[in-house]
Amino acid sequence: MRIGELSRRSGVSVPTIKFYLREGLLPSGELTSPNQANYTDAHLRRLQLVRALIDLAHLPVARVRDVLESLDSDSLSLRGRIGAVHRAVTPAPQPAADDGARGAAEAQVREFIEKRGWAVEPDAPAIATLVETIAVLHSLGREDLADQLDTYADAAERFAEREVTAVASRPDPDQIAESVVIGTILGERLIAALRLLAHEHVSARLLDRPSAPSHRTETTE
Amino acid sequence: MRIGELSRRSGVSVPTIKFYLREGLLPSGELTSPNQANYTDAHLRRLQLVRALIDLAHLPVARVRDVLESLDSDSLSLRGRIGAVHRAVTPAPQPAADDGARGAAEAQVREFIEKRGWAVEPDAPAIATLVETIAVLHSLGREDLADQLDTYADAAERFAEREVTAVASRPDPDQIAESVVIGTILGERLIAALRLLAHEHVSARLLDRPSAPSHRTETTE
Repeated sequence: MRIGELSRRSGVSVPTIKFYLREGLLPSGELTSPNQANYTDAHLRRLQLVRALIDLAHLPVARVRDVLESLDSDSLSLRGRIGAVHRAVTPAPQPAADDGARGAAEAQVREFIEKRGWAVEPDAPAIATLVETIAVLHSLGREDLADQLDTYADAAERFAEREVTAVASRPDPDQIAESVVIGTILGERLIAALRLLAHEHVSARLLDRPSAPSHRTETTE
Repeated sequence: MRIGELSRRSGVSVPTIKFYLREGLLPSGELTSPNQANYTDAHLRRLQLVRALIDLAHLPVARVRDVLESLDSDSLSLRGRIGAVHRAVTPAPQPAADDGARGAAEAQVREFIEKRGWAVEPDAPAIATLVETIAVLHSLGREDLADQLDTYADAAERFAEREVTAVASRPDPDQIAESVVIGTILGERLIAALRLLAHEHVSARLLDRPSAPSHRTETTE
């Protein structure tokens, strides 16, 4: 297809496509004349992946280039290549806890991952996020939330089982990678929104009961 | 207690406490001499809530003031007051979808909430987030993720049941509010991190199987 059709089918403007070509995010088309090139469905899929990385994951162009290089690497297994995409869209942990609290949280997380038998790299950014969050919970006296790790992890395994199965059924590595980006980011947004709504629903039942703790007599709804 | 002890017990510096007093985020202490005031445990609890709203939820000072006013309102039930805190720490939806996609997503979300029998306000920000996210998923051809709403909602209900029960057991409205802020924000971070780790774990099993789709022969690990 010509660049105009690539633009129509992807919803990406021609100037933006040309920018991606110059920046090396999209391989050149096959030249059919000195100033006309032909693009394939592989270009379309790569373009959709680039949009997901830029629009959804908000990665800078240089980072997108790194991700695409990993994806195109022959020295990595499919899982290794997908893992690189997954890592790229994983938020970095926000250091917030003090060192003492972090040490205890690290031990708790290490033990937790071992107990669950999870095969994960020890330097996964999500582990660092988990450690920081648990350390902050401890420093705030909210051990109760940290104690619910297993409840959360049971659900996370169920989600992952379905999500990875759906993603792995895609026929092409670029489509798998795009699905990973979309699923990681938008799936997280879905889960967070549903949890907030469930809070509202459950609060309606639990907080307005006569046994709900309150210093005041509740007369209004 | 004097301001020095309030500072020690809360971990908030004296100048910051004085700033909160000036900004009306903390009620004045009882004056025991022209330049000395006495603070109570209620001040300590309010201070901890203010820190959670500022440090964890990153609310601006004016917004914190609004939240505290709702919390102190006599015209709202406990649930109404807690709801105001919950809303304040709920992220605003990010408009991303076009109007056509949004219309279809709105209908899907309305039907979904009705089917689940969730008692939630129709203007809850989390509903708008849900609508936007589903609209984007549809425009990206990822209906499969939108179809997993029930899986996510089942888990969200289980989380909320435990979380709201834990929060409601706190003896004081300010402590309940602080728990809501901490639980909403840090709980979400725990769930997201565990889901990423579960992805990694499940991928190790599913993506490296011989039946995993790939255009290449996998020889390296």
